[in-house]
Formats: sequence, C-alpha cells, structure tokens
Amino acid sequence: MATTQQRAATTAKATSSPSTDVPMPDEGRHRVVVFDVEPRVDRGSFDVKRIEGDVLRVVAVLVADGHDRVRGVLRSKRPGSSRWVETPMRARGNDRFEAELALDAIGRWELAVEGWIDDLETWRHGLERKAEVGEVSDVDLAIGAALIERAASRCGNGSGEGDRELLERAAKAIADPRAARDERVRLALSASTAELCARHPERALATRSESWGVLVDPPHARFASWYELFPRSTGEDGRHGTFRTAEAWLPYVAEMGFDVLYLPPIHPIGIAFRKGPNNTLTAGPTDPGSPWAIGGAEGGHTAVHPDLGTLADFDRFVASARDHGLKIALDVAFQASPDHPWVTEHPEWFRHRPDGTIQYAENPPKKYQDVYPFDFECEDWRNLWRALRDVFEFWIARGVTIFRVDNPHTKPIPFWRWCIASLKSAHPEVTFLSEAFTRPALMYSLAKAGFTQGYTYFTWRNTKHELESYLRELTKTDVAEYFRPSFWPNTPDILPEDLQYGGRAAFLARLVMAATMSSHYGIYGPAFELMDHVARPGSGEYLDNEKYQLKRWDRDRPDSLRRAISLINRIRREHPALQRNDGVVIHRTDNDMLLCFSKSHGEDAVLVVVNLDFHHRQSGWVDLDLDVLGLDPHTTFQAHDLLGGGRYLWHGGRNYVEVDPHAMPAHVFALRRRVRTERDFDYFL
Amino acid sequence: MATTQQRAATTAKATSSPSTDVPMPDEGRHRVVVFDVEPRVDRGSFDVKRIEGDVLRVVAVLVADGHDRVRGVLRSKRPGSSRWVETPMRARGNDRFEAELALDAIGRWELAVEGWIDDLETWRHGLERKAEVGEVSDVDLAIGAALIERAASRCGNGSGEGDRELLERAAKAIADPRAARDERVRLALSASTAELCARHPERALATRSESWGVLVDPPHARFASWYELFPRSTGEDGRHGTFRTAEAWLPYVAEMGFDVLYLPPIHPIGIAFRKGPNNTLTAGPTDPGSPWAIGGAEGGHTAVHPDLGTLADFDRFVASARDHGLKIALDVAFQASPDHPWVTEHPEWFRHRPDGTIQYAENPPKKYQDVYPFDFECEDWRNLWRALRDVFEFWIARGVTIFRVDNPHTKPIPFWRWCIASLKSAHPEVTFLSEAFTRPALMYSLAKAGFTQGYTYFTWRNTKHELESYLRELTKTDVAEYFRPSFWPNTPDILPEDLQYGGRAAFLARLVMAATMSSHYGIYGPAFELMDHVARPGSGEYLDNEKYQLKRWDRDRPDSLRRAISLINRIRREHPALQRNDGVVIHRTDNDMLLCFSKSHGEDAVLVVVNLDFHHRQSGWVDLDLDVLGLDPHTTFQAHDLLGGGRYLWHGGRNYVEVDPHAMPAHVFALRRRVRTERDFDYFL
Repeated sequence: MATTQQRAATTAKATSSPSTDVPMPDEGRHRVVVFDVEPRVDRGSFDVKRIEGDVLRVVAVLVADGHDRVRGVLRSKRPGSSRWVETPMRARGNDRFEAELALDAIGRWELAVEGWIDDLETWRHGLERKAEVGEVSDVDLAIGAALIERAASRCGNGSGEGDRELLERAAKAIADPRAARDERVRLALSASTAELCARHPERALATRSESWGVLVDPPHARFASWYELFPRSTGEDGRHGTFRTAEAWLPYVAEMGFDVLYLPPIHPIGIAFRKGPNNTLTAGPTDPGSPWAIGGAEGGHTAVHPDLGTLADFDRFVASARDHGLKIALDVAFQASPDHPWVTEHPEWFRHRPDGTIQYAENPPKKYQDVYPFDFECEDWRNLWRALRDVFEFWIARGVTIFRVDNPHTKPIPFWRWCIASLKSAHPEVTFLSEAFTRPALMYSLAKAGFTQGYTYFTWRNTKHELESYLRELTKTDVAEYFRPSFWPNTPDILPEDLQYGGRAAFLARLVMAATMSSHYGIYGPAFELMDHVARPGSGEYLDNEKYQLKRWDRDRPDSLRRAISLINRIRREHPALQRNDGVVIHRTDNDMLLCFSKSHGEDAVLVVVNLDFHHRQSGWVDLDLDVLGLDPHTTFQAHDLLGGGRYLWHGGRNYVEVDPHAMPAHVFALRRRVRTERDFDYFL
Repeated sequence: MATTQQRAATTAKATSSPSTDVPMPDEGRHRVVVFDVEPRVDRGSFDVKRIEGDVLRVVAVLVADGHDRVRGVLRSKRPGSSRWVETPMRARGNDRFEAELALDAIGRWELAVEGWIDDLETWRHGLERKAEVGEVSDVDLAIGAALIERAASRCGNGSGEGDRELLERAAKAIADPRAARDERVRLALSASTAELCARHPERALATRSESWGVLVDPPHARFASWYELFPRSTGEDGRHGTFRTAEAWLPYVAEMGFDVLYLPPIHPIGIAFRKGPNNTLTAGPTDPGSPWAIGGAEGGHTAVHPDLGTLADFDRFVASARDHGLKIALDVAFQASPDHPWVTEHPEWFRHRPDGTIQYAENPPKKYQDVYPFDFECEDWRNLWRALRDVFEFWIARGVTIFRVDNPHTKPIPFWRWCIASLKSAHPEVTFLSEAFTRPALMYSLAKAGFTQGYTYFTWRNTKHELESYLRELTKTDVAEYFRPSFWPNTPDILPEDLQYGGRAAFLARLVMAATMSSHYGIYGPAFELMDHVARPGSGEYLDNEKYQLKRWDRDRPDSLRRAISLINRIRREHPALQRNDGVVIHRTDNDMLLCFSKSHGEDAVLVVVNLDFHHRQSGWVDLDLDVLGLDPHTTFQAHDLLGGGRYLWHGGRNYVEVDPHAMPAHVFALRRRVRTERDFDYFL
C-alpha cells in the first residue's frame, strides 16, 4: 500500500499535464528499422579490424511493420574515396539481411546499411497470390501501374531514359482495360518488369544506419613471425655491435623462417642515473645502459645510437633485411632519459616537482630515475601529441612500417586513438604492436583505440583450463573483432617460470603453442633458441639481462632450437589454417595434461596436441568434433604429424594419442581427408 | 606477390600526404575511458525497463592509462527532475566499478556514469608505499600539500568554507619542513584528510558517458494475472450484454485471483461488410459483428457501443471493478470500419485506390473488407499520429491506465516510439501490452520502442526443448532488459492444438506453465476455465468464435477449472519468486516429458515440474542445482507441493518425481530449508 501511495504522489503532478513535450521526428514515415548490424565494435564506436583480401560478411536486421517487402543495401566507401558504393543485401529470413564485401584495399573503409520498403515488390507479391486463386481485379492492376509510372518518373536522364520509356510502356500495358487480363498479369509478374522496377526503387523514406569503420591492414598484421634481437649484442670480441655486425645475423633469422626482425630502441641512451648490469643503480663507465632510457647529447627519438652507426647505416640495414625477406620493426618508447634533448627544449612537456626537478617515473616505492615520463596532462599537450606522432613519421619516412610500442598503457587512450588514426590516414600500411602487459580492460581499450596487435597473457597461461579459456576469449568473443593477439613465450622483460624450470620440452611446447594458437607470434632471441633459462634470483627476469649489458650469443650451439623453429615456421607458411585464428576449435581429451585444438580454413585442417607435462610421457583419448573439421565419421582419415613425421590412420572422432616430452612435447597433425579417385584408388588430400 | 603490388598501388597516393587530416579532440586530457556500461539496451539507444522499488545495479569499466587511482560516480536524474544526483561507484577490481540505485519513482530515469583520476588518492597511495619502506622525502610531502591546496581552492563558499580552512591547514602542516616528518606523513595518510580531500575532487578532466534511460513502471507491469472477457456475452436470455450485466462477473473474476480484467474493444461496430458467425462474409441483421471492426454512426475509438451502455455506465463499471481489486485494461485497435467517422472526416488518413474507394486491409489473397487500415505514409501523418495518441488520452482521462494494443506490428515502429514516450511522459503509470504475434525481430523492436509487455510464442511452444530454450531466451539474454513476456495459453484468436486435443490435463498444464514461467500471464475466459476446445475444422480458431457472435457461458459448471485457477493465482501472490522472471533456473531431468525449473528470490524458492505428456503418468529423476537454490547438499530440505499438498523430504540434488496427468499434470513445490532452532528442534522455513 505504501508503494501505491508513493507512486501516486510521484506521478500526481505529471498526470495532470498533457503529453505534448515529446517532439515528433522530422520525418515519421521511415518505416524500416535497422538493428543488430554486425560486425561492429561497441555499435560502431570503434573500427572492426580485417586484413586485405578478406571478404567481410555484414548482417543486419531490417524490419518494418506489417508484411511489406523490405530491401536493403550495404553501402561502402573505400579508403580515401568519397563515393558510396552499394551492394544489395540478401534476405535470410526472420528480417535478417546479409551482404559480402571484398576488402581489396588497405585503409579505413566506411560502411552503412540502408533499408526501405519495396512498394512495387510488395504489390507484385500480392498480385501473384491473387493470380493463383484467380482473383485479380482491374483495380489491382491499376494500383501497380501507378507504382510503375512513379518508378518511371524516378529514372534519371541519360542512360535512365531507356528505362523510363520501358517502364511507361509497361505501366500503360498493365493498366490497359482493353487488353486481356491474363496478359497484363503476366507482364506485371515477368522477371524483366521486376528487374526494371528494382533498378528504380522509391527510397525517399529509406532508413540508413549510422556509418561505421572497418580498418583493413596488410596481411602481415594477422600472420607474422617476429624475432627480437638486440643489435648491440652482435659485435665481435666483446665490442658494441653495430648495424653492420647485425647484418651478419640476417641470414640466420631468415633461415629460421621469421618475417619480422624487431629491434629494441636504437637511440642514444642517457647517462644520468644510467642502470648497471642486472638493473643495479650505478653503472660503470663502460656499461651501455638500457636502450629504453632514450635520449642523450647525440639526440632523442629520431637519432641513432652512435655506437650502432649512422642513419645511413640504419637505412642500409633495413634494405639488407628486406633482401632477406625480413621487415624491420622498430621499438617506440615514449619516455625520455634526463639527457634527452626535449628535457631542455620542452621542459613544459614534463611534470615539475616542488624542488624544481623533473618528476622521474615511479611505481612507489620503486623509482626509475633514469626515465622521465611525458606529462600528458600538461597545458601544451597538443604540441606534445604532434611531436610524438612525428617520431613515427620520421621513421616511416625512412621506410619503417612496423612499430612495437613500448608500454602504451602508460599513455592516455585518447592520445593513441588520435595518433594512430592520424598516422594510418596517411600511411594505412603502418602497423602497431602494443606492448601492454596490463589489466584486460586497458589492454582491450588500446586495441579499440587502434593498435594493430597486442601482446597477451599467453606468457603466463600454463594449465589446460587457462589456455583453453584464453583461446576462447580471444577467438570466440567480440574481442576477435578488434584485438589481434600476438603470443610470446618470452621477452627481454619476462622469463616465465615454465621456461626457467621446464627444460627443452618447455621451450619446444611453448614455441609450438605460440606458433599454432596464434597466427601472430614472436620470440625474444637468441635467448629463446639457446634456451637461456636462468633468472635473477627471486624474479621472473633474466639473469645478466641483455637490457643492461652486451651479450654474446653462440648461434651455432648444437643444442639450439633453431631447426625446430625453422620447422614450425615452415608449417605455418604451408598451412593457411594457422595463418588466422577464426577457425579454432577446442577438442576434449580425457587427460588434463593434454591440450588439443584444431584450426581449419577451407580445405586445410591442422590438429595440435600438446603435452603440458614437460617431464613425463602422457597419453589419452581425444574426442574430435569431426563435423567442424569437415571429416566424414564413416571414412578413415589421415593424421600426419608434421613435427614427428608419423602418419596415422584414424577413424571416427575418438582417437588415442601419446606425447613424449623428451622427444617432442607436441603433435602438429595435418588432417587429410581420404579422396576416392575414379579408378577406386584412395589417396589423402 | 599480386597482393603486395595491389596494396602498393592502393596506398601509393595516400603515403605521400602528411598525416594531418585527423582532428585532435578539443580536450585530449580526459584520461579515463568509460566502457561496457550495463545494463543498457543497444548501448543506450533504448530504455532499460525496471519496476518501482527495484534496486538497479549499474556496472561500468572506468579505465585510465597507468596506475593512477580512478574514481567514479553514477549520475541519475529522477523522473521529471532536472537535477543530477550522484552515487559513488565502488571499485570491483579489473577497472570494474558498480553502484546501486533505488528506483523509488515511476517514470523515466536518466543515468550516466562519470570517472576521473583522483590525483590526491594516487599521491596518498604512493606515500603509503614509501612510508612502509621509510623513503618519504620532503618533496613527496610538498607535492601532496600542493594538491591539497588546490582542493582547498575548489571549495565553494558557504558550507564549503569550513572544508577550505581545514584543507589549507592540512596542506600547511604537511608541507611544514620544521615539523616531524612522521607526524606530517600520519596527517597526510589519516582517514579524516582522505575524506576531506574526497569531498573536493578535481573533475575538470573527468569523462562522462552518454546518458541513457531506465523506464520504471508500476509493479503490475511485471506481476499481473489477466482475464479477458467479452462484456457483450454477459447478457441474460440471449440478450446483448451490457456493462451492467458484466458487473455480475466481477466477483467471479476477482475470486479466481486475477488483477486485470481486459475487455476487447467496446466501441461501435461497423455495418458495412460486417462479418457473420465463424468469420463468414455475410452477417445477418442480428449478428453483432467483430468488436475489432471499430466505428459506426455512433462514433469511433472514443465512443462506447450503445448496446453496452453509455460512457457513464463504463465509468461505473471501472469503479465497480476497482472495488473488486480489478483494474480494467482496454483494447486499442488502430483500424477503422468503413463506417468509422474518420473515414469521412479524414479521408486523407486512408489509402485510396484508383477506383476512388478506400483500400481495405488485405493479406493477399485474403481480404478484410470490414477493416480499413490507416495510411501511416500519408502526407498528414503528423495529425494522424496526434489523433491516435489522443485516443489513449481520452481513456486515460476516464481512469484507464492499462492498454492492450491490437496488432501493433502493423503500425510503424517510429509511431509507437513517439506515441508511448509522449503518453508516458505525462502519465508514467500507463502500461501497454503489445499483441504482436509476429516475427521475433519485430516483436522485440516493439518492446524497444516502448511497449511494457508483449505477447509471446509460449502459446505454440510445447516440447521440453522448445520451452526451455524459449525461457532461456526471455530471461537469460539481453532480451530481459527490455522485453517483458506475457504468457497466454489461449486468446480469442488462438486455440492451440494442445488444448484442442489434450483434455483437462492440457488446460491445467498450460495454465501452470503460463502462471509460473512468466510473472505476467493471462487467459481468455470463460473459454479457458470451461475448457472450450472445439476448433473450426482445419483451423486453430475457436468454432463459433466469440469474436463474431454472442456466447453464453455457464460459469458455475462443475467441471470448471476455476478452483485450480484460484489456487495457482494464490500461489503466485504468496511467492515473490513467481512475481519476477530473473530467478529462473532450468534443472535437468532424465525424462524428456518432464520439464523442471525453479524460480528464486531472496528466501523464496519454487520448483515446478510439469508432465508434458497429457495422457500418461511420467516419472523420473531431477538433478537440482542446489547451489543456485541456496540449499545445503548435506541437509534434508522439504519439497512442499502447493498444488497437491504433499510434503516430501529431499536430500541432495538428485530426487525422484512422478506426475500423473489425470490427477494434476504438474507439481509446484515450495522448497523449504530446514532451520535448526536453539532447542535443537528442526522446522522448515
């Protein structure tokens, strides 16, 4: 009762006023409503990501009251074009429409969906029903003739004039009471009349969705294998490496099958508060410092460390890498050492402490006095944004189109949104890998803001449940529309526990998982293939970390994993299913140490079984979802282990597997359908 | 290679231009990003629906770069108010924030979420970490003092002046280098300083979400039991019933436990093309015609059929119903008989055929010549919209606040959106039940457009799989935020097959399902309780349908289901769990003829088991999800059958059930937890 009284009190005042304060729309006769347009990210607030060559399937609900016929088009504007092009949408039942669009250009496409009531088709449909029961009247035909006449009046000049004449003639014939009614009905229902009418629809009351964006990237944004190398560690006899000495590593990296060679920052390094080996606070006179403490007397983000060489040497290195089929990715780390030129040229871009000093980076109680963050809340933020954007422009002008962005999660999302959009509007081929090992919301926000790919939690996902649920999150949810994962088993910052303690099997298993679960992956080498696994005590960081000192790597060490890496990269190149993540299916196994998933694309199907126990042989039964794999449950198929070379004849979904980590901790099977030839001789596709 | 060349060609032009065409935001320093605000419908495009007294939980991701502390508020504007009120949001981890809002007024609430970086809390957090390791410096304290001084400068006049003084004093003390540092740190970290600072946050760079709406309805919008009655069939001795004779039915309907008495249209009925019994095309002189052929010489949508009485009689009937605890729902059917006054007064609101006649309704080849649809595409659509809206206004002014809208899916969505918003802005207590038995997209569009409830496909869902998946769709998806289902086992238009052939058990089972699966349900009586089950041959319609002729119903027939209906309606009133749909859980049974689900709310838990086989006794085991039901798996609980009266002691999730359709085709159990009293004497809650 209290509730009722309260309600009465609440509404008493409102009830006495007339309902006149809700404005009518300017045009209330747009009867079609557009709903559930997919794919979009947050209803079009952010761009959907695709790859050049993809065919985008757009679906939408176009619904109108009653039973009138609705038609729809997908409108698209190619990158850089101002012209809308229309693709008819097909009705799929239950008011759902769809259309495909071939994304044959890199850049930002703009899309919209439009629907309208097709009065002519509605009339024709009714006429058909009436004709079936022989109940067509002259009035019915006159109604349609009037509609066709209106279609004629919509014909443009020039090429439209032919249609106008045809439509006018059809309208006259259909309306002509002296002609035989059957003939008139036949003309009205003819395919040629339908086509003619469909070319000149009445769209004055059409409904158009808001437009949204699809960002189309070059293929390597989805499928690439990265190798991270410190060029300064390529010197001979303990000397600081140079771009010239790094050139000697190019054949090695290329032979392993990598596409992208990623260099940590190549800029001058600050001297003030330089870090010594193992992240100690005092550096000796010969300690090289961290490449991420950017900027010195020799310059900042657009200069090259003099010990590495000159800009001309860099250019030569890039060209030489290209000759080896390798693209160079540069590291962009937006922070300054105290010796960065901007510290004196643009003190307004930094935060100042009450004692007049500049605020260094800190994560209390930790201090990073060798690094000054930029103050994105400064008054001069506009010039700071432009200057940072122009760092990318500088390297793009030198031919670099791939960037790995350091710690983007410590710079504001709105900055990245503008910076990346600005760069991609002029250089749509440029890609940005986000090195954001941070909270999920922030990681995904960066992806929505425009980053091409992102580092992931793969590095710390070890158990079957963790790996399966993460794989599902990345490939089977909306996340897949905007976040492209890059899987890294290690980085200079992270030596995870499994690699510390799991031995060779761990390295191999993590390599196979990274390279097969994610079409985009990378390793920090040579630490990876040489199985560097010693951590600084009590940390998840490498002992004698290359970040703070020069390293010598013996790339010819006989126990190196380079051959296994070459093999897995070759398998990736040969199997389109591994070059994308949309065909993932997780299959049940009866052993929690055995992870099993497949990837399919077209005819290609790859099945991966990983032993997550790096110490013991594990076996069990896998239950394959044959339907999804396109395999006939009644026919034998072949599981060809691309790593071990074995070929197994399997029949049905339930199959036995055994994985010995001491040999190879994973199977990567190509599943081959049996094909019966005309001469009744079987082979496997 | 072709791909690469093509890409080069595509981007060559763009690459040469500088990246300057993407504008910067006016203010780029809004570092907080607001994401995933829930609940919203289509990201706020449509209102979320709730009931007066509900507590709305709003969750949102408020995420900023780096590790700075973020704070957020839920902003809300009560119906009719222009003042925003703020509720602090609580951090829930992973950048997720939430707040609750008590919806204590009917009408449209406006909500928004706002987040900002709390610089003072960020500083205090860092200071705490530094204090733990004894590394606080004077500069650290000076930084905070400056922040506190800025907070002081934000204090308003009047009541804020006290805070300003306190803040200024705290800033001075914290900055004072002569005082003991420990004391200064203690003051900085004190709860009172924190509270003081929190009252005056820096929000100049806060980020605010777009606002969205929550439509709060009276409780009967969610929980109500409807009874549909043709008043014209309440006459004695074959005479046309009147509002006076219908009054005699009010105690009967009230005793069965219904809340809403819904009348088919009560307006004058057209004579032209009037339908005869069983929908025949020719009516005899005494045939009353269909109440949905609205309008005659005596008036249209705002007139009362003279045979029913006068407007004064209607008012008396409404008042009398109210005395019996019954609200009257009127049927609003926007169409006109050829005799409707508007046909001559407003011919511009109808579509005209080439022969000068007005276009009647048709669904070719079917013709409905007794009904003219309005032409919502006419030039004068604005006045048509207003006139239709004013039909509601007319009846609202006579005290009617519940409408059942006939065939809303044959009128444009934009019209309903405006019409309902317009009416609810002045009369927020008014509700609209959509009679749209149409395609799902259209049904849900009408709900988004503002309809309070909607008829559903329940009427045709018979198998366990159909019922379970439909229940899930309605209660466990986004649909639940905007579409309130109303379950009807029958209507004057629909006599489904199960009722035609299933006998008494079918009527009882469908009644129990409608009344327990959906908190909002109704029956078309007395056809239902008297188990009228004879269809016109070859149709799903009643033989001798009340739509076209007067009926005589013997409400005292001994086989009537009225007692079972009274019982189920009393159970609904006594069990809060049945008065809403959000607590539904479907439980597994090992017999496909046994449907089993529960509803819980607070302490109340109801378990329903229905035998979908109306002819044979069925038994089986149910697997209850005890966790969801809040039951201890190690303690006996009681299943009290509210229909049959039996009380069963159950233990654990797996329990045996048996349902005999010849007795009662369903169990409705109250699940009662065992409560141990202080004297170690158990009883059941």
